[in-house]
Amino acid sequence: MTTEKIPYKTYLAEEELPRTWYNVRADMKVKPAPLLNPATGAPMGFEDLRPVFCDELIRQELDNDTREIPIPEEIRNFYKMYRPSPLVRAYCLEEQLQTPAKIYYKFEGNNTSGSHKLNSAIAQAYYAKNQGLTGVTTETGAGQWGTALSMACAYLGLDCRVYMVKVSYEQKPFRREVMRTYGAAVTPSPSMDTEVGRKILAEHPGTTGSLGCAISEAVEAAVSRPGYRYVLGSVLNQVLLHQSVIGLETKTALDKYGVQPDIIIGCAGGGSNLGGLISPFMGEKLRGEKDYRIIAVEPASCPSLTRGRFAYDFCDTGMVCPMAKMYTLGSGFIPSPNHAGGLRYHGMSSVLSQLYHDGYLEAVSVEQTKVFEAAEVFARVEGILPAPESSHAIRAAIDEALKCKETGKEKTIVFGLTGTGYFDMVAYEKFHNGQMSDYIPTDGELEASFAKLPQVPG
Amino acid sequence: MTTEKIPYKTYLAEEELPRTWYNVRADMKVKPAPLLNPATGAPMGFEDLRPVFCDELIRQELDNDTREIPIPEEIRNFYKMYRPSPLVRAYCLEEQLQTPAKIYYKFEGNNTSGSHKLNSAIAQAYYAKNQGLTGVTTETGAGQWGTALSMACAYLGLDCRVYMVKVSYEQKPFRREVMRTYGAAVTPSPSMDTEVGRKILAEHPGTTGSLGCAISEAVEAAVSRPGYRYVLGSVLNQVLLHQSVIGLETKTALDKYGVQPDIIIGCAGGGSNLGGLISPFMGEKLRGEKDYRIIAVEPASCPSLTRGRFAYDFCDTGMVCPMAKMYTLGSGFIPSPNHAGGLRYHGMSSVLSQLYHDGYLEAVSVEQTKVFEAAEVFARVEGILPAPESSHAIRAAIDEALKCKETGKEKTIVFGLTGTGYFDMVAYEKFHNGQMSDYIPTDGELEASFAKLPQVPG
Repeated sequence: MTTEKIPYKTYLAEEELPRTWYNVRADMKVKPAPLLNPATGAPMGFEDLRPVFCDELIRQELDNDTREIPIPEEIRNFYKMYRPSPLVRAYCLEEQLQTPAKIYYKFEGNNTSGSHKLNSAIAQAYYAKNQGLTGVTTETGAGQWGTALSMACAYLGLDCRVYMVKVSYEQKPFRREVMRTYGAAVTPSPSMDTEVGRKILAEHPGTTGSLGCAISEAVEAAVSRPGYRYVLGSVLNQVLLHQSVIGLETKTALDKYGVQPDIIIGCAGGGSNLGGLISPFMGEKLRGEKDYRIIAVEPASCPSLTRGRFAYDFCDTGMVCPMAKMYTLGSGFIPSPNHAGGLRYHGMSSVLSQLYHDGYLEAVSVEQTKVFEAAEVFARVEGILPAPESSHAIRAAIDEALKCKETGKEKTIVFGLTGTGYFDMVAYEKFHNGQMSDYIPTDGELEASFAKLPQVPG
Repeated sequence: MTTEKIPYKTYLAEEELPRTWYNVRADMKVKPAPLLNPATGAPMGFEDLRPVFCDELIRQELDNDTREIPIPEEIRNFYKMYRPSPLVRAYCLEEQLQTPAKIYYKFEGNNTSGSHKLNSAIAQAYYAKNQGLTGVTTETGAGQWGTALSMACAYLGLDCRVYMVKVSYEQKPFRREVMRTYGAAVTPSPSMDTEVGRKILAEHPGTTGSLGCAISEAVEAAVSRPGYRYVLGSVLNQVLLHQSVIGLETKTALDKYGVQPDIIIGCAGGGSNLGGLISPFMGEKLRGEKDYRIIAVEPASCPSLTRGRFAYDFCDTGMVCPMAKMYTLGSGFIPSPNHAGGLRYHGMSSVLSQLYHDGYLEAVSVEQTKVFEAAEVFARVEGILPAPESSHAIRAAIDEALKCKETGKEKTIVFGLTGTGYFDMVAYEKFHNGQMSDYIPTDGELEASFAKLPQVPG
């Protein structure tokens, strides 16, 4: 089919919604390294993880072999409230850039959580409910994950307790109200509610918080409360699995038009969107069937892939979680307060880290003023006000499209537009007022953080 | 086709986007009364309106006879960025209410303006650009119209100056930043920038503003500046015409499934959404081909249809605009500061006013705490956080569905979900904290306002 016939927006029909998630680990020759018990250094098995996670989610976390995992009917029905999400041909952006590149984006922002996070939130809440639990605890950074989980819990009638990174809690008071609309309890982190929170506050009074702190608090709150489990919006294998619905829909839509991407781009904080977007494509690449350039885009202020170490590290600041092997800046790393929005996690999904280590994935880092410049161009021509996180992918997509303009090559670029920026107007305001700065951690700062990486015992 | 096969969301294909707007005035036996020159009492003709409005928009304003008016290709292309909008079957709300009613809603919130306002904004900006103008001025209340116009102007490269009702400007600082992202200049109204603004401030220091004040300022700013015209987001015949795209898409989608609505519900401030949603259905009703119950829902704090007078009145507080025959609370009426969100205009579209007067339209008024209760129920089961304005329609739809539960009748209800509430979290917060009150104007207050209705001269 000719590209002339491709509509601005492609919505698949509800019956084309995937019936199975895609587990890219099945295609990996080198599997992601297992989670380790920080005390013993032994790999964490099913029983070790039960105090923290729901049973079915642990099975998904540990399953490195099953390529297709069925999506329960109840989750598919929830998905139908906002999925399939549109695949958009960025005709207006192409014209603005005067590029021969063909640009597509998969837009995940048309739901109240404002992002792709809802795809995993409903899955995790569903399995918790199915296990007869009372509630779940979690952390949230920019607030998208917390909102998503609140929505899923409200739908299923589960209690929801959210620890929100303090800087976001303060910058985004309205996010809190959205979560309250969905009945969630929201606490700024670090808080005095948990032992680990009190410890972090004692050591770092005045800290603006980090995802790592908030994770520690949420885990403590879950394990100390009967009938509760902890859920996480990124990083984990299970989350990438749930998010594969993004990539599967993208592939189905592109296949309809016979379009094959050359470059696939996604922003990467913990890796949930990127991991989900690329899953089926990466599967083809790993099996040697197709070749794609796949690019992770991260903030220069929190550059875990491009400047981190590939090592075992704690997933949280309080070191209450298992250790994961990943590209990491060190679990004590907290991005500069100048850094706006999400993508502030110190590590990266073990799956993506392994793929990057093995050369299947590229990574670039971008500075935030360049990111907001791209966001504004995009908003004006494509009509969507993008989230700061998503705008990292926009920046990289624009840069690739401009390279095409120089070389004259008609590359096909697909990127993940993970969400909308309606709750990020404080950051946009700073950008408009010229008050936004770029802070890039020095080598010395990173070395100091790496020096605290744990020794794997045993 | 059986209702079992109806998907959660129906997206028409881009080629099903209407090619013509639907002008319901062509079907009206009694046409809406003409705008009058306030000085002479004579009907305003094309030449009289030229200092204020674009030429092509005046033609549309005055055309009571042409049923189908072509949508220019450039506007259709812009529409493709966010249209066709979904028609949603509210399965989850039906289940929550345990009603035999079948509920559908046409969701207009999936664009950055957050509402249906973009449908007319792009049309008005397009005709201004086409006429070679430099820019446009307007007013905005809740901020949706101002955002929509900013987006349309950014897309076309037109200058955009927005007078924003002061109470909204203060309650919604982030709306201002969205408009700035799209390059608009935003001024809180009443301001010291215009003669009429200074006069209003002198008479009512400390006023929180009203749409009527902001309109006066925007009109003055347009006529006093070469190359500028004034554009308006509601009330006018031309706006209802552009918004008919909502009703046309709704009808096409329902017809696909052989579904015939019994009741059509829309919120009504100036009437843009309701007028657009009902246009083709009202056409059938006026021609005697079909019968529908059509219900306008307005706030009890600003009840122009249910408690207003059907009379000629000024469209603005400053009395710089033509007079329109409409249901009005008097051009000096300003709703209580407790009133959240939009739907705060003192009058109502002349088209809708005439239809209401002639018995083709019902009207109900609802109190805002009941509106937010409905909004929260809806958000939790349908996953969309609705705008306060849209939630008026939700309230009425729920009330009708609950009546069906009592009577056991399987009515089909269609309502307009005009937008999202992401920028209305201050109002939600008040609701959550129990600080929201319902203020209903007394008969005495309304009588005092009616006493100032103008005498039509000549």
